Amino acid sequence: MLVVMQSHATEEQVREVCKRIESLGLKAHPIPGSARTAIGITGNDGAVDLGVLESMPGVIECIPVSKPYKLVSRDAKAEDTIVRIPTGSGDVIIGGQHVALVGGPCAVESEAQVMAIAERIAQAGVRLFRGGAYKPRTSPYSFQGLGEPGLQILAKARKNFGLGIVTEAIDHESLDLVEQYADVIQIGARNMQNFSLLKRAGHAKKPILLKRGMSATLDEFLMAAEYILSEGNYNVILCERGVRTFADHSRNTLDLTIVPAVKRRSHLPIVVDPSHGTGVRHKVLPLSRAAVAVGADGLLVEVHHQPEKALSDGMQSILPDEFAQLTEEVRQIAALLHRTVN
Amino acid sequence: MLVVMQSHATEEQVREVCKRIESLGLKAHPIPGSARTAIGITGNDGAVDLGVLESMPGVIECIPVSKPYKLVSRDAKAEDTIVRIPTGSGDVIIGGQHVALVGGPCAVESEAQVMAIAERIAQAGVRLFRGGAYKPRTSPYSFQGLGEPGLQILAKARKNFGLGIVTEAIDHESLDLVEQYADVIQIGARNMQNFSLLKRAGHAKKPILLKRGMSATLDEFLMAAEYILSEGNYNVILCERGVRTFADHSRNTLDLTIVPAVKRRSHLPIVVDPSHGTGVRHKVLPLSRAAVAVGADGLLVEVHHQPEKALSDGMQSILPDEFAQLTEEVRQIAALLHRTVN
Amino acid sequence: MLVVMQSHATEEQVREVCKRIESLGLKAHPIPGSARTAIGITGNDGAVDLGVLESMPGVIECIPVSKPYKLVSRDAKAEDTIVRIPTGSGDVIIGGQHVALVGGPCAVESEAQVMAIAERIAQAGVRLFRGGAYKPRTSPYSFQGLGEPGLQILAKARKNFGLGIVTEAIDHESLDLVEQYADVIQIGARNMQNFSLLKRAGHAKKPILLKRGMSATLDEFLMAAEYILSEGNYNVILCERGVRTFADHSRNTLDLTIVPAVKRRSHLPIVVDPSHGTGVRHKVLPLSRAAVAVGADGLLVEVHHQPEKALSDGMQSILPDEFAQLTEEVRQIAALLHRTVN
Amino acid sequence: MLVVMQSHATEEQVREVCKRIESLGLKAHPIPGSARTAIGITGNDGAVDLGVLESMPGVIECIPVSKPYKLVSRDAKAEDTIVRIPTGSGDVIIGGQHVALVGGPCAVESEAQVMAIAERIAQAGVRLFRGGAYKPRTSPYSFQGLGEPGLQILAKARKNFGLGIVTEAIDHESLDLVEQYADVIQIGARNMQNFSLLKRAGHAKKPILLKRGMSATLDEFLMAAEYILSEGNYNVILCERGVRTFADHSRNTLDLTIVPAVKRRSHLPIVVDPSHGTGVRHKVLPLSRAAVAVGADGLLVEVHHQPEKALSDGMQSILPDEFAQLTEEVRQIAALLHRTVN
Repeated sequence: MLVVMQSHATEEQVREVCKRIESLGLKAHPIPGSARTAIGITGNDGAVDLGVLESMPGVIECIPVSKPYKLVSRDAKAEDTIVRIPTGSGDVIIGGQHVALVGGPCAVESEAQVMAIAERIAQAGVRLFRGGAYKPRTSPYSFQGLGEPGLQILAKARKNFGLGIVTEAIDHESLDLVEQYADVIQIGARNMQNFSLLKRAGHAKKPILLKRGMSATLDEFLMAAEYILSEGNYNVILCERGVRTFADHSRNTLDLTIVPAVKRRSHLPIVVDPSHGTGVRHKVLPLSRAAVAVGADGLLVEVHHQPEKALSDGMQSILPDEFAQLTEEVRQIAALLHRTVN
Repeated sequence: MLVVMQSHATEEQVREVCKRIESLGLKAHPIPGSARTAIGITGNDGAVDLGVLESMPGVIECIPVSKPYKLVSRDAKAEDTIVRIPTGSGDVIIGGQHVALVGGPCAVESEAQVMAIAERIAQAGVRLFRGGAYKPRTSPYSFQGLGEPGLQILAKARKNFGLGIVTEAIDHESLDLVEQYADVIQIGARNMQNFSLLKRAGHAKKPILLKRGMSATLDEFLMAAEYILSEGNYNVILCERGVRTFADHSRNTLDLTIVPAVKRRSHLPIVVDPSHGTGVRHKVLPLSRAAVAVGADGLLVEVHHQPEKALSDGMQSILPDEFAQLTEEVRQIAALLHRTVN
Repeated sequence: MLVVMQSHATEEQVREVCKRIESLGLKAHPIPGSARTAIGITGNDGAVDLGVLESMPGVIECIPVSKPYKLVSRDAKAEDTIVRIPTGSGDVIIGGQHVALVGGPCAVESEAQVMAIAERIAQAGVRLFRGGAYKPRTSPYSFQGLGEPGLQILAKARKNFGLGIVTEAIDHESLDLVEQYADVIQIGARNMQNFSLLKRAGHAKKPILLKRGMSATLDEFLMAAEYILSEGNYNVILCERGVRTFADHSRNTLDLTIVPAVKRRSHLPIVVDPSHGTGVRHKVLPLSRAAVAVGADGLLVEVHHQPEKALSDGMQSILPDEFAQLTEEVRQIAALLHRTVN
Repeated sequence: MLVVMQSHATEEQVREVCKRIESLGLKAHPIPGSARTAIGITGNDGAVDLGVLESMPGVIECIPVSKPYKLVSRDAKAEDTIVRIPTGSGDVIIGGQHVALVGGPCAVESEAQVMAIAERIAQAGVRLFRGGAYKPRTSPYSFQGLGEPGLQILAKARKNFGLGIVTEAIDHESLDLVEQYADVIQIGARNMQNFSLLKRAGHAKKPILLKRGMSATLDEFLMAAEYILSEGNYNVILCERGVRTFADHSRNTLDLTIVPAVKRRSHLPIVVDPSHGTGVRHKVLPLSRAAVAVGADGLLVEVHHQPEKALSDGMQSILPDEFAQLTEEVRQIAALLHRTVN
């Protein structure tokens, strides 16, 4: 924390602020500048809320300095975290030099639908399958997902096609079930700061795919992951899925710059969801290429064999043939960056 | 839904789109314009996702028209909803001509702290008390609240000072307890789209104070309330608490315009939280005045007798004396608008 | 500027950064913390761009500390700036205890229109009249304003009704003319960072009303004013007119919190434009009340006697009768705050 | 325009709205739905502002339908616009299958600086050079550019190294000079809605590179280009340079999704500026790759041989060696997309 004094602040005011800081058990470091004095504070482990200094006479502003996250930081672990996901056809690896693709429908609608799509995903050489059995929907009147029967359908797709399953949990109860049936537990954007659910995810025995909240800063995103790691689950995969801005030409604004930003701050892998990130089918392919080109560790893509009949998100789902083309193009880009797609 | 065709779209393409619409059991209304044709769609009760029409040849855009909410809408109920909150000193009324004030600390820290502040709140003539026993904190290392013992302290404040208690629930388990101990159950901004929690709140026997999410649109905010009403709980109070924007001179950007916007669309009361909405103590009083002047049905204000020792949000808490001044000023403004503060 | 080092940064790296800082003629103040070292920098008058330190080994972040504005700052002048605008019916005063109202149409359309509206503005006891002769329009095909003939109409309204005239200049050429005909020169939101125009405004002999850009931070807004003051024109009135956010229930998001924020940082007066700030007629009155309640030094309101025939912004213009009611309500609120409306 | 009626609107109210529409010389098309009636409007060429219908009894909302741009639209011209820029070493082509790179410093600081960098740009096989002689700076106390002497230095670099020159004009006066000396006239983000300058650019004999404003929507961006085309200059190159959002891990949020969005709506080429778009040196290379992968028609990259001594934007400038690597990587990605870099 740095406390900036007004240019007219008296020496007495500076002394008072320092005294207050030291009364809190911390150390004050006044830095007299040409125009004004600033006071650095050290010794704070995060427990003390120093914002109140801002209301002391002569103070103009308090600026936080230290980043509050620990376990997710590159300071704590310099090398990239590699997450291994066991599937019927061998482990899929995310992180480091490994790029992983995940394809599948937004929602599990029926066994026939899942099998039809899963077959095409596997044919494209992709070994992770996505599909929601629990759907967080803006409207209570929209399709809310099949629940446990949906998970059973996914388990069958895993078995039939050697796929690993990525699917969302929306509360403690569904997380218990998802943990049993799936290989990766997804926490959605709307639950990124559902801290009760994050703590539960921290006790899960499966990797967590954590989506960035719609207006989450980098720090908040990493702190949400910190909740999971701090409970003991170190297998966390971050996912950029677009943020909310004024821009209206896409459903969300896909923020690819967060990929190198995460890599500088944290050792965790980060994948990109171009389907929610753009919300429109014809933008999924170009943004998928861009995501791999920027250095993402994977893609999460919505694929549907009959998008016009999809119960949700049909507008942003691509066809199996388009997905096959997409995997081909991103493999080539990954190869240029000396990375392997699996 | 309105489907807009490209200016070069052929009559054949327009016919194809109409055919597709009708194959879905809906009715198509082509409107030939000077530059292009648009096609209105009627008969859709929300179950069909029409976005996929956007990828048909000749279509340039699909524009949603109907609002998806029902029970929260003024269409469903023209007159203002009035929520009554029983307290030891008679009912507090929110909505219609009644403005209600709520004061208290961000977090319950100790019995001594709560009693000291509650006494001052009651002295200011305010009968609703806020204070969190469950705190959703960005960092897992920050103070997370006292839990049930905190609720017991709040219950004691209710008894001692005739106050009604407003406190937050963060998951099913805490909601069960909050429902027992408190008079109003708060759902925080981070949980505004925690649909599992909203459904549980819909079965609660107590009124719900629902805070707007950090980047929630008006429609999403009302749809979150719709989740609660659709499960049977009609006593919902909305709360504007600032949204996330690029602006950096306040913690959030308080969006007071949403107050008249809500009143036009919905019959539900809406209160304002100027403490989270600004994040800085010296802005709480002016924005409180503005909130009542714009027509809000109440205020939720953080008050602490020793803000510099607060375990959370000390920076935005005002002193009891400042709160007494605030209540005085907003009473005068409310009177100009022919409203009563209680 | 504060340079934050990585927790693993070596002493050698800290020394290298200090050396680089001192080679630039500045002074380095290392502050060793428990987790990491930060380095304060003093002696920089703003000429050196220190961001490059961010790419030195061991550095994690550079945080700017000093505010770059000078003349607009309360540091430079502690008391409120009062701007006097001479009119045919005596000076109108903005700032300090004085609140000023401005009413009139978005655009000057014809002499008959201006006279009809000006008469009603004057009848409401308001002495400043707005109306654009030069209109910055998103589309080249929209009405662009009458130009100099429009200014002549405004001058006639001034003479006939004893009004002061506020009107917009959009480039050097129009500013020369506006300076001749009007009493206050408006710089619109889209030109807030048209620095060439700001410099010209700094040489004008009339007060400048400077609107906040659609996505301007507080610092950028004040720096734009600094351009004008630094060229010698100290009569600057700031104007909040809404910013661009994701929210879609109003044309812009009116950011009333900037009013107390400006007052803390700067001595300049700030008025609010609730017409552009909301974009919808039924929201203008409540937001006008809120703006005065939050402490704004004035209001700029669009009034039209036939809004359905307006050539621009008819949707957000209120009727003369509604304006008369508005002036009455804000006078009462201003009186509560011990301020005078003129 | 589509007018949506309240569900309780009476037939009389619907008739009144239709009558009003027809009194304006337009045609009304009522569409009775199950819950409410909507009224389509045709015959409007954009001259009539229909927003006022929103305040008629029974109306809940007016939704604009037609896009207001004409000349920039794919409706007006289906095939991609190709812009040719003559240089001493042959034409550089932007658009269609051609990707163009532009490199150079943020600002022209001295002849020695420009020559040192220009030599390295040319060595990397890049034939367009950027560098500002007129700098729009947030602070009036920052370096404002060398003006005409700076243009003369650029002209010398063109001659010495066979480069085409891209440089910014900030007002009519500087545009006159830039038109003489340079090959492409840049209009910066802060001037995207400086309509007076856009009209002047529409009369220029050189291509215009138009940067997206910090909070411009796609429609506003295209309408700004429409200003230029409507005055007769069809050689417009759009440039995405990041928009302003809440995200704080980069200077701006680079919105790569706008590239496919522009390509769907318009025939104009669009390039990307990853230097301003991210604001941090280590993010320039990954975002450059992503921009070409998403389908951009070129890159505008800040390169400086001594970034720590740069008078502006040193923090986001890359070194000549890094630029050479960048050109190599994007050439490979372009080749995968069957595009040629020049």
